[in-house]
Amino acid sequence: MVVLVNQAGLNAAFIFLLFGSAILHLASGSTTRLFKWSVQHQYWSPDCVENVVITINGQFPGPTIRARAGDTIVVELTNQLETEGVVIHWHGIRQFGTPWADGTASISQCAINPGETFIYRFKVPKAGTYFYHGHYGMQRSAGLYGSLIVDVAKGEKEPFQYDGEFNLLLSDWWHKASEEQEVALSSKPFRWIGEPQTLLINGRGQYNCSLAAKFNKSSDVPTCQFSGNEQCAPQTLHVQPNKTYRLRLASTTALASLNFAIGNHKIKVVEADGNYVQPFVVDEMDIYSGESYSILFKTDQDPSQNYWISLSVRGRLPKTPEARTILNYSPSSPSNLPNSPPPVAPIWNDYNHSKTFSNKILSQIGSPKPPPSFDRRIILLNTQNHIDGYIKWSINNVSLLLPTTPYLGSIKFGLKGAFDHKKPPQTYPIDYNVMMPAPNTNATYGNGIYMLDFNSTVDVILQNANALAVNVSEIHPWHLHGHDFWVLAYGDGKFTKEDEKKFNLKNPPLRNTAVIFPYGWTALRFVANNPGVWAFHCHIEPHLHMGMGVVFAEGVHLIGKVPNDAFSCGLTGKILNHKG
Amino acid sequence: MVVLVNQAGLNAAFIFLLFGSAILHLASGSTTRLFKWSVQHQYWSPDCVENVVITINGQFPGPTIRARAGDTIVVELTNQLETEGVVIHWHGIRQFGTPWADGTASISQCAINPGETFIYRFKVPKAGTYFYHGHYGMQRSAGLYGSLIVDVAKGEKEPFQYDGEFNLLLSDWWHKASEEQEVALSSKPFRWIGEPQTLLINGRGQYNCSLAAKFNKSSDVPTCQFSGNEQCAPQTLHVQPNKTYRLRLASTTALASLNFAIGNHKIKVVEADGNYVQPFVVDEMDIYSGESYSILFKTDQDPSQNYWISLSVRGRLPKTPEARTILNYSPSSPSNLPNSPPPVAPIWNDYNHSKTFSNKILSQIGSPKPPPSFDRRIILLNTQNHIDGYIKWSINNVSLLLPTTPYLGSIKFGLKGAFDHKKPPQTYPIDYNVMMPAPNTNATYGNGIYMLDFNSTVDVILQNANALAVNVSEIHPWHLHGHDFWVLAYGDGKFTKEDEKKFNLKNPPLRNTAVIFPYGWTALRFVANNPGVWAFHCHIEPHLHMGMGVVFAEGVHLIGKVPNDAFSCGLTGKILNHKG
Repeated sequence: MVVLVNQAGLNAAFIFLLFGSAILHLASGSTTRLFKWSVQHQYWSPDCVENVVITINGQFPGPTIRARAGDTIVVELTNQLETEGVVIHWHGIRQFGTPWADGTASISQCAINPGETFIYRFKVPKAGTYFYHGHYGMQRSAGLYGSLIVDVAKGEKEPFQYDGEFNLLLSDWWHKASEEQEVALSSKPFRWIGEPQTLLINGRGQYNCSLAAKFNKSSDVPTCQFSGNEQCAPQTLHVQPNKTYRLRLASTTALASLNFAIGNHKIKVVEADGNYVQPFVVDEMDIYSGESYSILFKTDQDPSQNYWISLSVRGRLPKTPEARTILNYSPSSPSNLPNSPPPVAPIWNDYNHSKTFSNKILSQIGSPKPPPSFDRRIILLNTQNHIDGYIKWSINNVSLLLPTTPYLGSIKFGLKGAFDHKKPPQTYPIDYNVMMPAPNTNATYGNGIYMLDFNSTVDVILQNANALAVNVSEIHPWHLHGHDFWVLAYGDGKFTKEDEKKFNLKNPPLRNTAVIFPYGWTALRFVANNPGVWAFHCHIEPHLHMGMGVVFAEGVHLIGKVPNDAFSCGLTGKILNHKG
Repeated sequence: MVVLVNQAGLNAAFIFLLFGSAILHLASGSTTRLFKWSVQHQYWSPDCVENVVITINGQFPGPTIRARAGDTIVVELTNQLETEGVVIHWHGIRQFGTPWADGTASISQCAINPGETFIYRFKVPKAGTYFYHGHYGMQRSAGLYGSLIVDVAKGEKEPFQYDGEFNLLLSDWWHKASEEQEVALSSKPFRWIGEPQTLLINGRGQYNCSLAAKFNKSSDVPTCQFSGNEQCAPQTLHVQPNKTYRLRLASTTALASLNFAIGNHKIKVVEADGNYVQPFVVDEMDIYSGESYSILFKTDQDPSQNYWISLSVRGRLPKTPEARTILNYSPSSPSNLPNSPPPVAPIWNDYNHSKTFSNKILSQIGSPKPPPSFDRRIILLNTQNHIDGYIKWSINNVSLLLPTTPYLGSIKFGLKGAFDHKKPPQTYPIDYNVMMPAPNTNATYGNGIYMLDFNSTVDVILQNANALAVNVSEIHPWHLHGHDFWVLAYGDGKFTKEDEKKFNLKNPPLRNTAVIFPYGWTALRFVANNPGVWAFHCHIEPHLHMGMGVVFAEGVHLIGKVPNDAFSCGLTGKILNHKG
């Protein structure tokens, strides 16, 4: 079966091609969902201030992909940017058998040239809340993202029930173009991009007005007045009383760690990163960049009122106003603002509050358990450093500088010289004091990768440390491509062998993103069972841009045919060409 | 002989490579000048307002290439932009035998991917004043340009004498990033980029102050105060009294037509676009984007004074202040501003003044003469149009939309489908009224090209017309790649067969750029004797971006080996890959 997905903004030429291509897949048997996407720059007002965003088929955020578990997604992506390449990463999708479709420039493929079309084709094996985003330069910061929702396969059921569903994609927004942000971060002296101007909910935020202005007497920001057609007008969530709703949340922020709350409503967490969790109830919840959740809430409050949905910054001194939209009970008018003030966010640096939340996330009973032991342990020290006077982030003193030739191609084709084949460091000096700035802040650039034995069990200890300034250690949400990992434990200070006792081997959550708290460590375990080359990195866009990542590879010899299109750049391009 | 050109901003890694590569060329005999260039975005303050420019080896404008006629230039260009491709066009260099080195994206090569290095290798056969610039998207507007000066071969002499020399590269500058300018021009409704904020002389202009403020009582712009180290501080021209100086001028403006003057000094024009002209003396001169000149001036004025060098806008209602620098007579102090007011520019729309100047340019006695007749005449009507609600410029009602695959590769490799093989129109409807807006303003996109018989003599009549608005017709300086043409005549109104009588076949100037005046026509003749594919386009960057160009091809079957690297994109990339 083929489902043709005709989306608003699709132009006539594309519709012709859509039907043209669809015929090719008619005989394939399983459901294939075909999308024709065109990526371009466009004026947009995400937060009521006009700016340039990257759109897909004229939409910001990009169109939501909705599929069923087991479906095949085909996205024919045409790059209509003027001079920039582009790729799209399908965040949370494991890409079994299709590592070339992971959409990471320099790792799984060459960036798609302007004017060219690249076809992503991959299965979505598991129901859950996912999203997609650019993974080249800082194009995620430019607004290249959207939702990817996978429903359970036909005939299967979720382990919870609900009457309706909403999907909120959370992001942050700067008024400075992402291209200039890149220049700033790569400048000497270093220029920090600052805090985001605005938080966005489904691509909508309010920079120069506030929905809750009347509750903030100390600010002179006016109350927002919307006709509803504005690109920055909030999307109201319309609900019926006495029902249960599922809310899908995903954070594709470039920087901000977030706290989410629905005024007067409890929320029950049931899914994290596409994996069911043991349900638990909270008043509000943290969500870090790269994470996704499903929560349930009951519309059990006074239906004559509306309620706040509120988003605030955690872990950094909040200079960005809270984002808000309205939960509208029928038959109350959607234009009625709530009578009560919006939820009060936890203090930004109350990390114990955050840790308590993270530690509540446990896998659903019956979920796969981690192997009881590991074959290899990699300890990754996160530090901020200097290289030639530039400020960088480093892992075990190496700042990732991605190669021109994608690893997947250069390894598969057996090329030498495309990247440093020396093994990167597996740990850091035993006497390193993670509580203090390094005595020597110099690091080096590197592009070596961690070669993992196929099917081996790998433990990763993410070790946080002091940044360059005294008394500064930041939150870093680490995201692994191609795998889910078990989060065995979070801890404070420097990880030691003793800390293994704290590992939860009984019901640790399976995730693809896990945070390290300031001055803390996080222990992860995964099985290297997915042939390919996979990024593992801080999901904060400027941090990755400044080198905060590593690359894993496993079983590349087991990978079948890969499309030559994906490797037409760098040394793979030259090899392919010179055979001609 | 190999000349190693070590340039400021070159880093250690590059210097290593520089010497590494140089060895390869030691046996070649003739002089090869090897440049290692790295292109990147960088903060810069071209007009005292900080912005982002494209630099080469950390310099803006890029390094000046200086060579002798007959030399081979090798530029190993590494693209260090984050996500943008890049190419560089060597403006005025004919690229005999090396059409793949012409540096025009979609025409002579694929854009160079970020992280990759492309090697331009070409001869500079003829002495003259040239320049280079980006030819992808609107990267010229982003500041990707520099000078290319070719001296006469050893033992040869210029047909004039001088005691010293200066080189001024002229440009215009916007505070809005070129990437956003592209979005603006491609928006519906259309957004014009407006007039430039500042004119730059060697990359330096003053936005928020004026050197000549004291002479302009009606403005409250303050007098500039410079220590001299500012990136926007003007470069003073230091001269000795009673000498003759050569001044090389080249305009790489994105939009502005310019008028150039030296206060109290006459100027003698001796070279245009790398061709000697019959010397003539004027008080000031026009220079259009894409043109270059050499002028001589005598330092015959009171040496106790300094004098203005002044640049103003022509052909558009000037909203951009004049650019100025100082001609400093020794021993007068360079910090003394001139006592007299700066030269008064001609009225912006005094086109007769401009035509008088253009008509003074005649070839030096003994220069090659045009063939007395033509084999083919192509008439190109320049109009402003609508396509699907977008505003475009069109030639014979076709707006050039460049293909993804470079023509040179697709023709040489015999590919079908890379571009429209139907012939583009050779003229326009006989009843078209060039003095009025078109009754039907709709045009179409096209990428068909004009196939010229090898060695045939081609006449091109550039026919200007009314733009979309009533009583608007603009200046367009047309630049031809790969050739010089003879400018046979400029005329007013609609060109007719009768106008052939006005053709100057005796001493028409050889140029690579020629202007069409509002509501006028310009007749050009050239011999299609350079195997390759060549752009011919309005040199106004936003106009080209809006489709104002055509493409000529001749003798492609005669072209020898081309580097596969140049064609790793689009269909040529696929063909080269699929042979693998």
